[in-house]
Amino acid sequence: MSVVTFLTDGLQDDFVGVCHGVIARIAPRARILDITHGVARHDVRSGALVLRRAVPFMPAGVHLAVIDPEVGGRRRALALRCAQDDRLLVGPDNGLLAPLAERLGGAVEAVDIAHSPLRLEPLSASFHGRDVFAPIAAHLASGTALGDCGEWLDPAELVALDLPHARVAQGGLLAHVLTADRYGNVALDVERHELAGSGLTLGREVAVNGRPALYATTFADVPAGRLVLYEDGYGALSVAVNRGSALETLDLELDAAVHIEPSA
Amino acid sequence: MSVVTFLTDGLQDDFVGVCHGVIARIAPRARILDITHGVARHDVRSGALVLRRAVPFMPAGVHLAVIDPEVGGRRRALALRCAQDDRLLVGPDNGLLAPLAERLGGAVEAVDIAHSPLRLEPLSASFHGRDVFAPIAAHLASGTALGDCGEWLDPAELVALDLPHARVAQGGLLAHVLTADRYGNVALDVERHELAGSGLTLGREVAVNGRPALYATTFADVPAGRLVLYEDGYGALSVAVNRGSALETLDLELDAAVHIEPSA
Amino acid sequence: MSVVTFLTDGLQDDFVGVCHGVIARIAPRARILDITHGVARHDVRSGALVLRRAVPFMPAGVHLAVIDPEVGGRRRALALRCAQDDRLLVGPDNGLLAPLAERLGGAVEAVDIAHSPLRLEPLSASFHGRDVFAPIAAHLASGTALGDCGEWLDPAELVALDLPHARVAQGGLLAHVLTADRYGNVALDVERHELAGSGLTLGREVAVNGRPALYATTFADVPAGRLVLYEDGYGALSVAVNRGSALETLDLELDAAVHIEPSA
Repeated sequence: MSVVTFLTDGLQDDFVGVCHGVIARIAPRARILDITHGVARHDVRSGALVLRRAVPFMPAGVHLAVIDPEVGGRRRALALRCAQDDRLLVGPDNGLLAPLAERLGGAVEAVDIAHSPLRLEPLSASFHGRDVFAPIAAHLASGTALGDCGEWLDPAELVALDLPHARVAQGGLLAHVLTADRYGNVALDVERHELAGSGLTLGREVAVNGRPALYATTFADVPAGRLVLYEDGYGALSVAVNRGSALETLDLELDAAVHIEPSA
Repeated sequence: MSVVTFLTDGLQDDFVGVCHGVIARIAPRARILDITHGVARHDVRSGALVLRRAVPFMPAGVHLAVIDPEVGGRRRALALRCAQDDRLLVGPDNGLLAPLAERLGGAVEAVDIAHSPLRLEPLSASFHGRDVFAPIAAHLASGTALGDCGEWLDPAELVALDLPHARVAQGGLLAHVLTADRYGNVALDVERHELAGSGLTLGREVAVNGRPALYATTFADVPAGRLVLYEDGYGALSVAVNRGSALETLDLELDAAVHIEPSA
Repeated sequence: MSVVTFLTDGLQDDFVGVCHGVIARIAPRARILDITHGVARHDVRSGALVLRRAVPFMPAGVHLAVIDPEVGGRRRALALRCAQDDRLLVGPDNGLLAPLAERLGGAVEAVDIAHSPLRLEPLSASFHGRDVFAPIAAHLASGTALGDCGEWLDPAELVALDLPHARVAQGGLLAHVLTADRYGNVALDVERHELAGSGLTLGREVAVNGRPALYATTFADVPAGRLVLYEDGYGALSVAVNRGSALETLDLELDAAVHIEPSA
């Protein structure tokens, strides 16, 4: 049985349900697994990061994602094959698929599906999830060849997502704010296995932008109001204030620099 | 494999999940496709309009919808067969199913399932989604005949939904507010293919209740604060203010008249 | 086809979707039925009560529930078999599963799965839904024996949930607040079939903590502002104020006593 996973920013209305219906009509035997439809509206970056962390836990198949603020404009629409497990990605060419494709060994083939002969007609101006992305995902899940879904593209030409890159610096780490949740917890652009050489050790005191913090396993390891550095559920290093907001305490915004050093 | 689609106003708690369970016990091989459960509580009209636009994109099967403010009262409960594709509809007799049935060629057979021998016992006073509607939908998906689900009714007697009807008038269009979303975007009771003779042309200036607007493809075609007339994702003509509320700008409410004329 | 039902407090992000993916990889033929993921964050008691009322309507199978405020701490993780229908429950040992297990005839076998050889590695500090609970649920759905999932435990040692117990007293009922919803409707710790001897009769006036109320079938049976005693959709006796809040009107909180007596 083939699998289609699905991620959007469209929790509110019948957007998601109608896409399920379109997929089920074209590929009645495909199983649809919803990753989430709760990404903030038009937040391509958050969607891309959720997609990158979640899809490796999903069965290999077609991975459909639609967060598409430029729908109706000239952005391309993509279907692409990744090196790892032949996973197929479908979505708009706005960076949403790029971090996931990179994690899956890169895109080895890509087509522009904006004018696909397999899209639904008449094409609406604003509902390309239903008219373009879901039908192509369903046809791919049914075994249609990638080349029959659209016009070949050079995978090197795909729109990238502009993300910061942490680096281990002399005696510490220079990281950045990758995302923040509604509690003000901040995810950094570094994972634990990248910490070699930073001098940071679990259970030890550190300085985060000059302020004292503990590098701990969980929130509960520090008292209320204290800064804590910890690994989130996906292995990303994160900064929080127990029962507070790290974003506010440290006066941070997206991409802002976060210097982390072992305490003296 | 048979399909049951499902729409309710019950996103918050275990209402929807329990109905899934009841269906899965009676019809273990039926596939359930959720259209949406995010309709505003007790908003029969919005639910009926979402159902009418969404179901044609779903596989033919049993189409279950439960928005039921009069549960426990004397309203009838329905299962009906439509002319198109033999689609079967299940829900309360309060107008919720009526616009969809009309779009599907009309109801050709109907039964009252309120006292169906196939409902769950004991019957609760308030949870007929679980006790009446979901079990009947499941039995229909399993191949039970419509006549075995309840008492025959004359389909002409079903409760209708009172909706406005736009008409093309000399030199323009007299439409009405069908629904409005939380952004104040207003959907009208007219679709693009009904515009013949109205003199309205895509890309041209129009007057909406006397105010200047552009008849455009998308929001993005007008500056912030400007009125725009456009076709929504389902082909319905709509009025919006880019980054504003058409509902407030035009001081509209449900069913209010919206005169649209080509600009001189 | 085996069934896994699923309940959490994790509606917001990819938590639920990723667990679906993990289950689908391990048990591709299992069907996942979501009960709800809208339980208030960390509200073990509400989750336990929803689970107890909802699961009897679901097909027998593996019943997975994750509301886990102490994740990363020393709480045990459970898989257990209940007397009724051999239903299997999986979740944290914090009382979440206890009321359901009791309703299903009690746990007859239990294992601690915190260190299960079948969990995902590396184990995260905070995402045991993905790393521990979902994989074990999936292996059980695939036919793995309970004893292969962890270390045997004495079912008598499981953490209980501290719930009040109503009793019929001379000339009435001494009940307590079990839960309240966001409208201020209050569910009591008593079901209709437990009312024998209380003197309470449907359709008659009663006193609720000394205030006049009607014991009626639905809200609609009393005017706005009036107190009403009624049976909710699951058979639990409840107190409401039509278009108001019983919680505020009666100044109640969780576990508070609610005396109900027939009116003179």
